[in-house]
Amino acid sequence: MPTTDEMKAAVQAYTAAHTAGDIDGIVAVFAADAVVADPVDAPAFVGHDAIREFFTGTHQMADSLELLVTGPIRAVDRFAAAPLRAVTKIGDAKFAVDIIDVFTFDDEGKISDMKAYWTATDIAPVD
Amino acid sequence: MPTTDEMKAAVQAYTAAHTAGDIDGIVAVFAADAVVADPVDAPAFVGHDAIREFFTGTHQMADSLELLVTGPIRAVDRFAAAPLRAVTKIGDAKFAVDIIDVFTFDDEGKISDMKAYWTATDIAPVD
Repeated sequence: MPTTDEMKAAVQAYTAAHTAGDIDGIVAVFAADAVVADPVDAPAFVGHDAIREFFTGTHQMADSLELLVTGPIRAVDRFAAAPLRAVTKIGDAKFAVDIIDVFTFDDEGKISDMKAYWTATDIAPVD
Repeated sequence: MPTTDEMKAAVQAYTAAHTAGDIDGIVAVFAADAVVADPVDAPAFVGHDAIREFFTGTHQMADSLELLVTGPIRAVDRFAAAPLRAVTKIGDAKFAVDIIDVFTFDDEGKISDMKAYWTATDIAPVD
């Protein structure tokens, strides 16, 4: 089972891979059969191929996407939760939304389940 | 089903009731058969009586307990997540821990499930 520090590092790696536009890096933090609901009320994507396709689409929608950790990552046992902020640039316009991602880890320290708490109606323009 | 504003108000009511030491107020935001895991890796408490007893114990351990909302509450569909900080006073000593609480709501706008992401090892003294 991962330590709390290993879970926090995995969450940082996940967000850094998003900001770098590194789809391989995103997929690498997930278990092969991981379940991703982003946002939490959307149909879940299951497995590396579906997760890769989903996040590829996310990145294709924006000219750039930053996923920032905005506070302490909470981690205990095989669970973690993190306050995040996604900032996307589309042309000259910049938009942000606050997110909380919630993670379950497997014995190998890979993310087996991720749920993202956010809603499109909270996306707001920023400078 | 509750609106996102109703879910956010319920989370604020939950944290305000903690800070007021109002155990009835805490219990009132939960469904009669709600499931509470606080922290998330602990055995869950199910139903009003168990939830009342659990949080009564939490408040008896401290001379005072504040539960502060430290960032935007994320809410979508029947789900919400909130970054929180608990500050407890025991004698002259003050301790804080960062928490993320994750909520599911029922059709009546009551919390049917709550999971609290935090760990005792992150409790730190504060001024």
